[in-house]
Amino acid sequence: MGPKRMVIIGAVASGTKTAAKARREDPDAEITLITEEADISYAACGTPYFISDIIKDSSSLIIRTPDYFLKMLNINVLTEHRVEAINPGGKDIAVRNLKTNSSAFLPYDFLVLATGAKPYVPECEGVESGNIFTLHNIKSAMRIKSVLQQKKIGHAIIVGGGFIALEIAESLMEYGIKAHIIIRREHILSHIDKNIALLVQNHVRAKGVHIHEDDEVIKYEADSEGNVSKVITKKQTLPAEIVVLATGIKPNVSLAKNAGIAIGQTGAIQVNERLETNIPDIYAVGDCVETTHMVTGKPVWIPLATTANKQGRIGGINICGGNDTFPGVMGTFIVKVFDWTVAKTGLSEKEAIRNGFDVVSVIVPSHDKPHYYPGSKLIIVKLIAEKGSGILLGAEIAGEGVVDKRIDVVSAALMGRVTAGQLSKYDLSYAPPYSSPMDPLITAANVLRNKLEGKIQSISPLITKQKLERKDDFVLLDVRTKHEHDKGHIEGSLHIPLNELKSRSGALDKTREIITYCGVGLRASQAHLLLKTEGFENVKFMEGSLLAWPYAIEK
Amino acid sequence: MGPKRMVIIGAVASGTKTAAKARREDPDAEITLITEEADISYAACGTPYFISDIIKDSSSLIIRTPDYFLKMLNINVLTEHRVEAINPGGKDIAVRNLKTNSSAFLPYDFLVLATGAKPYVPECEGVESGNIFTLHNIKSAMRIKSVLQQKKIGHAIIVGGGFIALEIAESLMEYGIKAHIIIRREHILSHIDKNIALLVQNHVRAKGVHIHEDDEVIKYEADSEGNVSKVITKKQTLPAEIVVLATGIKPNVSLAKNAGIAIGQTGAIQVNERLETNIPDIYAVGDCVETTHMVTGKPVWIPLATTANKQGRIGGINICGGNDTFPGVMGTFIVKVFDWTVAKTGLSEKEAIRNGFDVVSVIVPSHDKPHYYPGSKLIIVKLIAEKGSGILLGAEIAGEGVVDKRIDVVSAALMGRVTAGQLSKYDLSYAPPYSSPMDPLITAANVLRNKLEGKIQSISPLITKQKLERKDDFVLLDVRTKHEHDKGHIEGSLHIPLNELKSRSGALDKTREIITYCGVGLRASQAHLLLKTEGFENVKFMEGSLLAWPYAIEK
Repeated sequence: MGPKRMVIIGAVASGTKTAAKARREDPDAEITLITEEADISYAACGTPYFISDIIKDSSSLIIRTPDYFLKMLNINVLTEHRVEAINPGGKDIAVRNLKTNSSAFLPYDFLVLATGAKPYVPECEGVESGNIFTLHNIKSAMRIKSVLQQKKIGHAIIVGGGFIALEIAESLMEYGIKAHIIIRREHILSHIDKNIALLVQNHVRAKGVHIHEDDEVIKYEADSEGNVSKVITKKQTLPAEIVVLATGIKPNVSLAKNAGIAIGQTGAIQVNERLETNIPDIYAVGDCVETTHMVTGKPVWIPLATTANKQGRIGGINICGGNDTFPGVMGTFIVKVFDWTVAKTGLSEKEAIRNGFDVVSVIVPSHDKPHYYPGSKLIIVKLIAEKGSGILLGAEIAGEGVVDKRIDVVSAALMGRVTAGQLSKYDLSYAPPYSSPMDPLITAANVLRNKLEGKIQSISPLITKQKLERKDDFVLLDVRTKHEHDKGHIEGSLHIPLNELKSRSGALDKTREIITYCGVGLRASQAHLLLKTEGFENVKFMEGSLLAWPYAIEK
Repeated sequence: MGPKRMVIIGAVASGTKTAAKARREDPDAEITLITEEADISYAACGTPYFISDIIKDSSSLIIRTPDYFLKMLNINVLTEHRVEAINPGGKDIAVRNLKTNSSAFLPYDFLVLATGAKPYVPECEGVESGNIFTLHNIKSAMRIKSVLQQKKIGHAIIVGGGFIALEIAESLMEYGIKAHIIIRREHILSHIDKNIALLVQNHVRAKGVHIHEDDEVIKYEADSEGNVSKVITKKQTLPAEIVVLATGIKPNVSLAKNAGIAIGQTGAIQVNERLETNIPDIYAVGDCVETTHMVTGKPVWIPLATTANKQGRIGGINICGGNDTFPGVMGTFIVKVFDWTVAKTGLSEKEAIRNGFDVVSVIVPSHDKPHYYPGSKLIIVKLIAEKGSGILLGAEIAGEGVVDKRIDVVSAALMGRVTAGQLSKYDLSYAPPYSSPMDPLITAANVLRNKLEGKIQSISPLITKQKLERKDDFVLLDVRTKHEHDKGHIEGSLHIPLNELKSRSGALDKTREIITYCGVGLRASQAHLLLKTEGFENVKFMEGSLLAWPYAIEK
């Protein structure tokens, strides 16, 4: 028997990783990487920073060249080659050389699909006009950057409100362009809970980006040269010299589908823990595959470079006769949005509810370092746990301070199915340049535990707002100082400063619901405990209070 | 029965936390906080930054005043009061008012010892001279700062090489003082493994601090005014206008001891998981108590503000009739050392060996962000695992890049007793401003896993150096380019560039041990795999290679 023939289709993250790992596992294998693109092994996630010119040279996004693969790893790379069909019976594939238009059959012993994902562009009149782009690889980033550098753009439209849309909006600011973002929903980052998402949205707006929510493009109009000039939406007509469609992506599965490879309920390729498809000796890795959400145990499609790299490694091991497994994902996500970082891991509250969990959540703002240490900044931590068991289900964290560290710790905690109480005992690192003696995560875990144990009663700003809109009968009590109250407060608030609350509590009606609030939630919490001590039974504090209140206040 | 009388001795971190939590748990309790000091509730960890003037005003280190405790929490605070005896039989304590010198008995239902720790100053001739300080509270920090601000200091000596010593050395640089650090051992940070510690030591020296290892002060000489003027050590005489003794701390346990409270083998107060001492209704929290190391299950005394705050909360809950427990610590530690961060969690390799573990470790440098993203910096990750099981035992991380995040993730992982393989599947957050698609921790876990599984063979720079010193028979092979080799290499290296290694490997002796090295370890690893493929059996790569090589190189 000669050396094993391994063919990998797709050569960005997971494909190149599979090939490189297979080479380390099996020095003798014949390994071929095939891609339709001219570039391989590039950092697609870096393209927004190339557009903004934080990264000057597109070549610095390329990690490895075909030449490196050939010379250093003895891996044959076929760029600008399209695989047109897989023949599982004969164990070969039909490959067309896009440069010569010739085609040939290539035999394999093991085949790995790393076909990735492609932009999803909703059908729309005029969408084929000039200067309407998607951003999905280095080539598309170069096209966008070239338009931005060639002419002064007055009006840019971004369709979609996911993290790519936000990264592009920020990139455009580097060119002095205040972009218009058009979203169908009521807030950006639709997989994040509304309360946190609205706070991020306020930050994006404060930076000068126009966000048009509950809207949708119905037509793109072009000028005489065929370039986009206007965007007509359900609600308005906006001028546009450039449009970026960040309307999502879809897994690239047509090749797999045509070969009889099973597709999962998410629309991506179904694989087992070993990343094997339903067809023997055919594996699939990266953005084209469906995986398991480790909190719910259900199939999800969350294509990310981290997963692609991990899966590539596993694919490489397994096609060489090893046995490695991919347990699934936590759906960990992070994005820099101007001065804020926004991150999530596990389930959002709405996802937890949708998955049948009985949920308790808290929103707890804290400084990321001690107040006295220079550069200390706020972050807002939302923790979501299962009622009863107290087992953590997820977290959302946002703000100017250090977010990534805390979300990674929660992701690690979710792996162990720990409770809020267990998280509160974590031995996290502390010195003033890095954290507080009580890390924001420990503080949030303690607040969540208090809520789970019924020691405190609290309510989110979002639900408080809904109660105000429904004109529910309750007292909204501002416990800040008179000076703070006079500078701005929620319309309809009663005002009693915390230090007068004990003496003046007699003036409050014990039969009515009371919701206390302050600046960040601390005094509001103290006030609600004080009122409970005074015999008030239906009293809650507003979590995060005005800091987490995403709506207008009265001045 | 009237309200419960709760007395807490000590009012920095754990004492004030106990009191505040007890108040929230029991609105009616009579709570008294007693301290010998004038200040309460201060951030002792911030004092080095007050000395360096990063923090201008000492009052910003005070978190809460006695007045706040009285007015907002109805907690009585006795400052400058010394507890002279505990009478467990009669359930009272003898308290002396240091301002009036009067004394009285104070009854308690529940007593909490939060007596903290005090500087340990080894006996030495002249140590009582002027301008010789310890740093243990705001008052001592103010004394040090006042000397630094009053006169131009030419010579400052710091005795000790722990994190306080390093923080003070850095603070002194703000005054243009290049301090001399005197340590008895061969490296600073004695609880960190030597290889990483020596790298940190090189960084400290590069910043201008003089480090005198294997040395010890035998006498302090004073000038005619009684202020220190010279420090005489085993090896030399150094001029000194200020001396800071950072020679460690000891738990404050004399009061407990005299009352018959059990002291553990570490010299700190023994408590159970509920933080109860051996005497009913007497609890102990914070820096004065012994706790459990969660990796070894053995008693340890690792006094830190994080533990003090957690324990204060638990103490407050339990004296009010609740039932909370403290599981122990991971020994997580972090310190900023000039441009570097150094952190540890779990066991170091030498601690693991001392505790009877059969250990496998790796040193893996990586960039903290993608190479193309501005501000990307290196960190060096050392992971320690148990041989066989692969269960992680600890980590040490150091470098200019983001260290705190990774150490906290490992600390969380240790809570779940995970293996290197499990860590390598963690779903950590990724976007270019925060990390790489393969986080440095994931990469290090993969390398460790390869080593555990016997797929790679590697050796630390430290052990390589020992082999060189012992004149072991082996080939030290530099696989970098000629240009890199000519700029500097380890004395006695053979040089074959990686891209010529395959063709030139015939010139190497297959019977001899070969250790490959490069810049950071990646090419060295590729080279050792290539040589194994070529039939070499006794080949290893040097982990971290020159980046982790703390010794001089030949130019």
